Amino acid sequence: MTNQTPLDSLDAIARTADEAARALVRIAPATRAAALVAAADAITAEADDLVALAMSETGLAEVRLRGELKRTAVQLRLFADTVVDGAYLDARIDRADPDFALGPRPDVRSVNEPIGPVLNFAASNFPFAFSVAGGDTAAALAAGNPVIVKAHPGHPLLSERTAEVAAAALEGAGLPSGTLQLIAGQEAGVAMLRHPLVKAASFTGSVGAGRVLADIAAARVDPIPFYGELGSVNPVFVTPGALAERAGEIAAGLVASVGGSAGQLCTKPGFVFLPAGHGLDDAIAEASAKVEEHRMLGPRIAEGYARRRDAILETAGVRVIAAGSLRTDDGGQGWVTPTMAAVGVEDLRAGLGTLLDECFGPLTILVEAPADADYADLLEEFFEGNLTVTVHRADGDDVARLVRAASRRAGRVLFDGWPTGVAVTPAMQHGGPWPATTSGGTSVGTAAIARFVRAVAYQNAPAAILPPPLRDDNPWDVPQRIAPAGESAAWGGRAA
Amino acid sequence: MTNQTPLDSLDAIARTADEAARALVRIAPATRAAALVAAADAITAEADDLVALAMSETGLAEVRLRGELKRTAVQLRLFADTVVDGAYLDARIDRADPDFALGPRPDVRSVNEPIGPVLNFAASNFPFAFSVAGGDTAAALAAGNPVIVKAHPGHPLLSERTAEVAAAALEGAGLPSGTLQLIAGQEAGVAMLRHPLVKAASFTGSVGAGRVLADIAAARVDPIPFYGELGSVNPVFVTPGALAERAGEIAAGLVASVGGSAGQLCTKPGFVFLPAGHGLDDAIAEASAKVEEHRMLGPRIAEGYARRRDAILETAGVRVIAAGSLRTDDGGQGWVTPTMAAVGVEDLRAGLGTLLDECFGPLTILVEAPADADYADLLEEFFEGNLTVTVHRADGDDVARLVRAASRRAGRVLFDGWPTGVAVTPAMQHGGPWPATTSGGTSVGTAAIARFVRAVAYQNAPAAILPPPLRDDNPWDVPQRIAPAGESAAWGGRAA
Repeated sequence: MTNQTPLDSLDAIARTADEAARALVRIAPATRAAALVAAADAITAEADDLVALAMSETGLAEVRLRGELKRTAVQLRLFADTVVDGAYLDARIDRADPDFALGPRPDVRSVNEPIGPVLNFAASNFPFAFSVAGGDTAAALAAGNPVIVKAHPGHPLLSERTAEVAAAALEGAGLPSGTLQLIAGQEAGVAMLRHPLVKAASFTGSVGAGRVLADIAAARVDPIPFYGELGSVNPVFVTPGALAERAGEIAAGLVASVGGSAGQLCTKPGFVFLPAGHGLDDAIAEASAKVEEHRMLGPRIAEGYARRRDAILETAGVRVIAAGSLRTDDGGQGWVTPTMAAVGVEDLRAGLGTLLDECFGPLTILVEAPADADYADLLEEFFEGNLTVTVHRADGDDVARLVRAASRRAGRVLFDGWPTGVAVTPAMQHGGPWPATTSGGTSVGTAAIARFVRAVAYQNAPAAILPPPLRDDNPWDVPQRIAPAGESAAWGGRAA
Repeated sequence: MTNQTPLDSLDAIARTADEAARALVRIAPATRAAALVAAADAITAEADDLVALAMSETGLAEVRLRGELKRTAVQLRLFADTVVDGAYLDARIDRADPDFALGPRPDVRSVNEPIGPVLNFAASNFPFAFSVAGGDTAAALAAGNPVIVKAHPGHPLLSERTAEVAAAALEGAGLPSGTLQLIAGQEAGVAMLRHPLVKAASFTGSVGAGRVLADIAAARVDPIPFYGELGSVNPVFVTPGALAERAGEIAAGLVASVGGSAGQLCTKPGFVFLPAGHGLDDAIAEASAKVEEHRMLGPRIAEGYARRRDAILETAGVRVIAAGSLRTDDGGQGWVTPTMAAVGVEDLRAGLGTLLDECFGPLTILVEAPADADYADLLEEFFEGNLTVTVHRADGDDVARLVRAASRRAGRVLFDGWPTGVAVTPAMQHGGPWPATTSGGTSVGTAAIARFVRAVAYQNAPAAILPPPLRDDNPWDVPQRIAPAGESAAWGGRAA
């Protein structure tokens, strides 16, 4: 693959995706599910080669990448189960009702159908799980859509190889050619986002780039949904009770969460509120000193981190607990260890403009609050939308107000743990108010499929024409929500 | 109410809504449901006064308005049932699983929570059902959100009176003051759409106005979902078989659907494809001549209709089947009877720029197609997103390709009937690809509630902190989707 897909080839790629969409809609879900499993098997079989490529292109550690590849395969299997289960179809059947309160009600049945070709902008920091065969791709495919992946320039060879392996597996399992295609280059990505045959887009990356793309999607002649997972600083609140109970455990857990993958995770805890006089400095400094140097994803990310880190450390009132290191090797790559800083609430308020933006890398700011501080108020004062808010508490602590404030600001509220290491499960919510995500929804877990469907209702359709999930004989055995006739009797029926 | 809510009062209104949102989240759903029923009872009790006001302000007929008020009350009751049922919460419980394929899985539980204050732009053509206490308001309230309604200038007194009646009923039933507020004026509406405390908006109206508002919502510092129901021409396809079987019935049904409410319905069938030589001219002309003159909603709408009608009738190849009438009374109001025109496929193609836009009023274009025409191809050639596509067919007709094309273009595909008269039911889908709606979803039926919630996950939350729908003892008795431990054994568990 060249660095940039030729712009004059994009129309053909979009048309191929559109043709694939038309073919996919006629393929049974069991075949689609089997194809997802085949893709999972195929990338698992190629794990050694893929992980080696990923290590050289991203600098991430082997154990992390093997885990991420496994997560990616499991995601595909989970979505295969989701397809077969069919609950995501939200099949609804309203029986005709001659006595309905508003006059005779027709037979109306609705089901979620594929939205159409999906453009997925891959991420830098998860070369498997949020890239070519990652969660957004799996969710869109599971819903029955073809996917065009815009490769991330941070791992071009891995992207190409993963696309070859996954596309061959999908096609080998009976899905149409063109179900999964790859493009590369910023200009190509933007042009494809504007293509009329593309019906939705997903993105994982920075607020800046995500906002540009979201604006392009919204400005189309026909605006399309743009599911961006952008910025999050993931504030953590430690109650005095939690600190009294397990200070050492909290210090160790924090450093592990910040240092893992060199802090290059969208769920890295960026701010930790805790009582002033917490006495954790030594424990945090010691734990940080034990974290091995880790390469950052690429030179540009390392430069950005260095700039943000300098700006934070130069801000008035910021105290360094562990300075951490940042060096550039002969190849221009940046190598880091965690930087842990602290600031008082008043200085955070004064330094808002500098301090509050996300810092992508292994740096976290402890916010030292007065003993009588109200964490709920501080949360509302300092933070907009986030992927997560974490509460460390002890039995007997009243955190009800804090939890309500957290649920207004975040997609996931977690307790007595750390936000990194997102579970891939049916209930996971990886998304939150702006700027955590652009259009709602989650990009992790099986609920992610909901972003790539749209409901279609069929009114008084002959049985032979109805999509299978809406038939009375329910050949795919999916959950059907049935509204029987006579329901409106409670409101007085026709006489009301 | 003045014509325009003072701009300097908007911040206080938004803050009141925000306070109401914080209070609403602590109120039990049974109380919320009872409040919706109280609002339904209140507007029903005031029906005589409200309908009289609506008649004078909109020119719509009494029987239509009484039916619409009843629909509005039934909608509120339906949403009360939806609240109590709790399926819309999509409560999911993933049990902790030490043997999960990707390593120990935490306890994760997610539930749909209210999105926050909703701004609802009321419609001109449904002074009850898509206005102050209409479907969008009912759906947003049902989800637990306060609503700020921007009144439509076409029925200001009715808007004010409805808001008084409904707000008093909601408050009387225990909901916080400020749960339902009214503003007026275009400038106030736009300013409120930009207010940071407004978290979602809904709109029913023209493509032009809807696009302006959608762009404003997308351009906010924090973009919010904008659920606009904009334009639709609702194409109808009549097979030769259907025509042979029931030509007279089709002609009569068409004229009734086009003439009702002077064609001022978003589901009015704008184009009817049928075989050339259909022989329906006389039947259609006769039925049209029997439709009584009907006042249009207001002078501006009548002027717009006159312009569109002239442009269509002056287009090359357009043949008039029933000219219809259009006169202006002394008060400046327009009065109309249906205009039925016909055009060949080639002339439609040549006149695309003029003919294809929505014509808001009682005008429909018959498109006369060659005997060998492929309706699926014509549908894809001529139409973008629509609320509905209708198929009139006879037993034995193969309409599978046409139905697939229709499901790609519309939110509702209906058979052997007419798209006007939308049923308010759980399976109804009133929305479709752009420009039918802006952000997916439906604005009619109980599924409309999904637009005004967002999922929040709770990870390892103590039982006492969990929202009631996520507790093991399930105090509200809502559907819970439970993922037990051990599920990943099928993928090899930890050993995989």
